[in-house]
Amino acid sequence: MLQNDRLLRALLRQPVSQTPLWMMRQAGRYLPEYRAVRATVDGFMGLCKNPKLAAEVTLQPLARYNLDAAIIFSDILTIPDAMGLDLQFVQGEGPKIGLPVRTLDEAKALRIPEPEKDLHYVLEAIDRTKTGLANRVPLIGFCGSPWTVASYMVEGGSSKDFRHIKGLLYREPEALHLILDKLTQAITAHLNAQIQAGCDAVMVFDSWGGVLTTDAYHEFSLPYMKKIVDGLIKDKNGVRVPNVLFTKNGSEWIESIAQTGCDAVGCDWMMPMGTLRERVGDKVALQGNLDPSVLYGSPKTIEAEVQKILASYGHGSGHVFNLGHGIHQYIDPENVDVLVRAVHEFSRAYHQ
Amino acid sequence: MLQNDRLLRALLRQPVSQTPLWMMRQAGRYLPEYRAVRATVDGFMGLCKNPKLAAEVTLQPLARYNLDAAIIFSDILTIPDAMGLDLQFVQGEGPKIGLPVRTLDEAKALRIPEPEKDLHYVLEAIDRTKTGLANRVPLIGFCGSPWTVASYMVEGGSSKDFRHIKGLLYREPEALHLILDKLTQAITAHLNAQIQAGCDAVMVFDSWGGVLTTDAYHEFSLPYMKKIVDGLIKDKNGVRVPNVLFTKNGSEWIESIAQTGCDAVGCDWMMPMGTLRERVGDKVALQGNLDPSVLYGSPKTIEAEVQKILASYGHGSGHVFNLGHGIHQYIDPENVDVLVRAVHEFSRAYHQ
Repeated sequence: MLQNDRLLRALLRQPVSQTPLWMMRQAGRYLPEYRAVRATVDGFMGLCKNPKLAAEVTLQPLARYNLDAAIIFSDILTIPDAMGLDLQFVQGEGPKIGLPVRTLDEAKALRIPEPEKDLHYVLEAIDRTKTGLANRVPLIGFCGSPWTVASYMVEGGSSKDFRHIKGLLYREPEALHLILDKLTQAITAHLNAQIQAGCDAVMVFDSWGGVLTTDAYHEFSLPYMKKIVDGLIKDKNGVRVPNVLFTKNGSEWIESIAQTGCDAVGCDWMMPMGTLRERVGDKVALQGNLDPSVLYGSPKTIEAEVQKILASYGHGSGHVFNLGHGIHQYIDPENVDVLVRAVHEFSRAYHQ
Repeated sequence: MLQNDRLLRALLRQPVSQTPLWMMRQAGRYLPEYRAVRATVDGFMGLCKNPKLAAEVTLQPLARYNLDAAIIFSDILTIPDAMGLDLQFVQGEGPKIGLPVRTLDEAKALRIPEPEKDLHYVLEAIDRTKTGLANRVPLIGFCGSPWTVASYMVEGGSSKDFRHIKGLLYREPEALHLILDKLTQAITAHLNAQIQAGCDAVMVFDSWGGVLTTDAYHEFSLPYMKKIVDGLIKDKNGVRVPNVLFTKNGSEWIESIAQTGCDAVGCDWMMPMGTLRERVGDKVALQGNLDPSVLYGSPKTIEAEVQKILASYGHGSGHVFNLGHGIHQYIDPENVDVLVRAVHEFSRAYHQ
């Protein structure tokens, strides 16, 4: 059905003619056409909650670049928003949760949202995007990981030191486990609803798993992601729906991430792809891992860094090219074109 | 000479009766007596530049706790301040550099400070602290790493995405190398001046090396730290002056850090001490690695986490107990006492 299914094939380690790529936050502020749409709505969540405009910005980077996937424009905090925790995006300060969750009683009171009702706007945006894509490339759905979403819910927003959630972790771990367990149910349901609404692959963003100790990561983040993987729809109308787990600053734990049963692991830029591939063998595909700051460089530098990553991963399938984190808002859109062309052109030699 | 030289012995992997400990930022805002002194001066740098008060706050945690070392109260940004780059600490916003360095010409214009003249206040604070310590425990001197100090100089302050310095790295690496080279000279001279003024050990804080790729870390951070190690005074009056290199989020690179010739490697909390020890063998001592957030826990939790780290490191010398990063300002000072007692008491079994 899909005209270009290289993303799905690479995530399942099936042969491809060239390495597929997409970019985290590819529908975002570095694009003037995104900023134009963003300026017409009230607040960041206003854009997320407008399915027509969310679909429009999702498709914008595809109109400019020869990307191998779209990712639905949404946010990992739609779930606490749907839980009624008073989410606000304050200009220049990032997200704020007006009703943070810091006690066992508050954890007990948390209501698990119903995606078809409480997050219907995401599903409608997916439906509209699929129409717009007209089967050109796959559409990726996503959620935050339970640990990462919980960190915003407990801290009341972004954090540098994670003192509230780590305080809970070390003082009242059972309250934290209850929050994580409810989030796991909410996230699994939301990802499955995204798949049913049309997503061809799904990804879990564990942006803050890397602030944990090895022991704490294996108690408070990874097991919940594994539960999500276990609960995901794996086949839709006989087609595999691959999933990706991504823990920022988590390369030290890549072996255990690979053992969750996920199809692919997202990689930040810290470790070379070749080292990561050696460590996981043929257990999973790998997605990554260009430092987004390379896009501040000249076309020559961008091409050289792309070559380096392709050579490091080496021959064969199982590699989805991506940035190691979201694209920065100050990047020149011209440089993204250099990146996309370089990945496609230089990668062909590795798939012969 | 020193009544308690366990820190120095452990850094040199010589036998000790119990594991020594100190805490990064042990002279800091979690102590009411620190806040009282801080309130009497104008700005954070006002405290750094007052040798009498800097010595006083350096000694404060020693009066409360049975710590095995003092670390001079100062800041890694004293060097850009001495370079005349208009350093300001803005309340609630962190450090600001009024004259950021972003071009080759600005790099060429950088003047390398003379410690005895431009940073005399640090040396006088060291001298006063040594008098106050009366040889009870060693005094640690420190600097930031060239990469870390450069990041503030190029960004103009703290950063989330390091876009200016990484832009320089990928666009004009020779300008960045010049900045790093000058900082290496400045830092080596400053550390040696601190040793001559009385410091018994020195530490280099690479707080931001962990935002680099493996390749970039080995080009823009580690080689400059190695040059510093090469240029340090190693013996003073026949006594070894040990040095410690610490790259936050750098455990992936611990083997190459250990190969610089440094005496010890500082470790954040991400990886278990036993894993890190296996990776470096008997090449270096290790310092770390309690998650500072454990101090939000109950005494029981603190003791259990201390036991875990001691058991993970295992028997024998070469371990300096520390937090994996600076102590948070909201920690209850009572909990630090629990930590100090636990490390000393439980560690004896590992040194028999």
